[in-house]
Amino acid sequence: MKPDRLQAFSDGVLAILITILVLEFHVPDFSKGHLTSAVLLQWPILMAYIVSFLYVGTLWLFHHDYFSNLTRIDRNLNLINLFVLFTITLVDYPTNLVATAVASGNTDDMKTAFIIYDIVALLISASFELLYWYVKKHPDLKSNQKNIYRSIELDPVRSVIIYGLAIIITPFSLVTGACLLCVGIIFHTFAYLRSSNKL
Amino acid sequence: MKPDRLQAFSDGVLAILITILVLEFHVPDFSKGHLTSAVLLQWPILMAYIVSFLYVGTLWLFHHDYFSNLTRIDRNLNLINLFVLFTITLVDYPTNLVATAVASGNTDDMKTAFIIYDIVALLISASFELLYWYVKKHPDLKSNQKNIYRSIELDPVRSVIIYGLAIIITPFSLVTGACLLCVGIIFHTFAYLRSSNKL
Amino acid sequence: MKPDRLQAFSDGVLAILITILVLEFHVPDFSKGHLTSAVLLQWPILMAYIVSFLYVGTLWLFHHDYFSNLTRIDRNLNLINLFVLFTITLVDYPTNLVATAVASGNTDDMKTAFIIYDIVALLISASFELLYWYVKKHPDLKSNQKNIYRSIELDPVRSVIIYGLAIIITPFSLVTGACLLCVGIIFHTFAYLRSSNKL
Amino acid sequence: MKPDRLQAFSDGVLAILITILVLEFHVPDFSKGHLTSAVLLQWPILMAYIVSFLYVGTLWLFHHDYFSNLTRIDRNLNLINLFVLFTITLVDYPTNLVATAVASGNTDDMKTAFIIYDIVALLISASFELLYWYVKKHPDLKSNQKNIYRSIELDPVRSVIIYGLAIIITPFSLVTGACLLCVGIIFHTFAYLRSSNKL
Repeated sequence: MKPDRLQAFSDGVLAILITILVLEFHVPDFSKGHLTSAVLLQWPILMAYIVSFLYVGTLWLFHHDYFSNLTRIDRNLNLINLFVLFTITLVDYPTNLVATAVASGNTDDMKTAFIIYDIVALLISASFELLYWYVKKHPDLKSNQKNIYRSIELDPVRSVIIYGLAIIITPFSLVTGACLLCVGIIFHTFAYLRSSNKL
Repeated sequence: MKPDRLQAFSDGVLAILITILVLEFHVPDFSKGHLTSAVLLQWPILMAYIVSFLYVGTLWLFHHDYFSNLTRIDRNLNLINLFVLFTITLVDYPTNLVATAVASGNTDDMKTAFIIYDIVALLISASFELLYWYVKKHPDLKSNQKNIYRSIELDPVRSVIIYGLAIIITPFSLVTGACLLCVGIIFHTFAYLRSSNKL
Repeated sequence: MKPDRLQAFSDGVLAILITILVLEFHVPDFSKGHLTSAVLLQWPILMAYIVSFLYVGTLWLFHHDYFSNLTRIDRNLNLINLFVLFTITLVDYPTNLVATAVASGNTDDMKTAFIIYDIVALLISASFELLYWYVKKHPDLKSNQKNIYRSIELDPVRSVIIYGLAIIITPFSLVTGACLLCVGIIFHTFAYLRSSNKL
Repeated sequence: MKPDRLQAFSDGVLAILITILVLEFHVPDFSKGHLTSAVLLQWPILMAYIVSFLYVGTLWLFHHDYFSNLTRIDRNLNLINLFVLFTITLVDYPTNLVATAVASGNTDDMKTAFIIYDIVALLISASFELLYWYVKKHPDLKSNQKNIYRSIELDPVRSVIIYGLAIIITPFSLVTGACLLCVGIIFHTFAYLRSSNKL
């Protein structure tokens, strides 16, 4: 299989995922004449949506640029890519969990929801680490000599540590854990800007 | 990244968005033998669907033509484009809000729903303004010398004013506000016809 | 805009539509231990799904082949194509209406649901008629001299008549009306086979 | 129609299907403060999701590679491909059925759900068998002389037998039946690895 077909399929999956996130913006239950307050109470959905949209968007940019760097796709890379896509599509679920838990206002539920988001984020970073590691082991899959990805090859490891810390800390401090998660996601966006700077 | 990959991803997002709008056409609750009246009461969904379909369709045409005009995509343009797509995907939510509020018949709820639609429309126009402004500042991203987009470069500003006015007026007059929103959207379609005329 | 971009966008919309039809296959409500009977009662969804899948699939084949025949897309054709896509995406709604109405078993509700499906099918055929008529008036948009579409150019008119008859007859005889609808849809598939035979 | 358009449409359908599987990960109903236990009870959805994601992903790889092997698509192949896509899109439904039935814990319901999954899997394999058979009968549709697919041409038949056995055995032994289904799906993944090895 040629890289451009795999890219087209992956772009498709990520385009669909980023778009169906919006399906969680349900019209809220409201009593007649009180739509304003019902809508205002939906701010956690908006927050979760913004973060997940930025997250999936950044992952798409990373994924797309990375595969543009490859000349050949072997069967293992195909399976690894399916695993990468699998972990990313999971994002839809913790996005809704966090939105619902924050709206409910219960600290225990919020902790659970954030930890599940952390686990999914950790899995995504681990799948990228697997991808980078496999391609490094098989240099014949890559096109250009100069390894522009050396600067970012440790990013997944760093991210796994950040999300791992978030999982450990969240049960003790919800705010610190939630901040770590956001920091991790914003870290991806900056890492992308940094890497694309060198292209 | 080449413009055609960004276009393909963006076309994908907009194709998905315009199609999943139809998912809001739920089968209505109805008591046996009264489906006809239940369906007829769904006319606000049909109205909202038609307007939003026209809106997203026009935005797609604009977006596609505009990026066909570019030769290079830099990292900032990638982020700006994600922001443009983000604001457009939000359309699904106020479409349903307006449909539900109009069906409920409560004036206050309708005002809230229309104002939220106005805010999303204003954000979309603002994101296009940001896009136009950025490309204007970086003429190296563009292909052709003759600026065919000069005639439409102020359109987003005009739209922001229209939707801003709608937000201010709607609390006082629902009908005037709703008309302003529809005028704004139809204005986009005509602006597209005008601009594509010159291509 | 080049025909291949319009085709890609339209293919995208139709691929999404044909796939999200399956979202109507909800897990039925069932009391513990009685899933079998609950699933068997869902046969109307299966029937409606098969018919609509065949319908949208055939429309995709028609749409794709037709635009392959064009060399240039003007702004009016873009708008007409949006209208064609609009009418096709509506199919999702009457599919669910028919499935729900048939499952409820009430004759009046079934008549309503079938008539709404007829209306959507009539609109789709009318939009194709508009498309054929516009392209006929603008021969410069077409590529090849020999008009391979002359044999099918009256098909939309025939279909409009079939679906119009179905709308008139259904209130008097549900079975005849439903048969007419199915005949109309199967007629499209055969018309496609006939036309593609000549390609 | 050229194979690459059919591939693009089919890739689109499968990309959408694999992504919307995640929509079944609804936020569970939970009483305040008990989100953790409610989420943990959702493990059957996770299991069903993993299996179906692997299944659809493998089918995509198979489908894509197979059509890369063809040089021409005739009208019958177009219809057969629609049938293949039809059977694959059905996967969404038994995935949810199995998840719901396993969560309910009732053996009879689980048997029903697994048998329906078996039926869909059997239909998918039968549709691939039809595809292979048709292409074998029309060697002019294929590109290369050496039949790299001879090694896998009996795979659909083997799969039909596995899923047929699963349908017969499940009423007597749920565990054996469920294992057969999983074996069948993992068999596809290994068959893909085996076939792509020879490419």
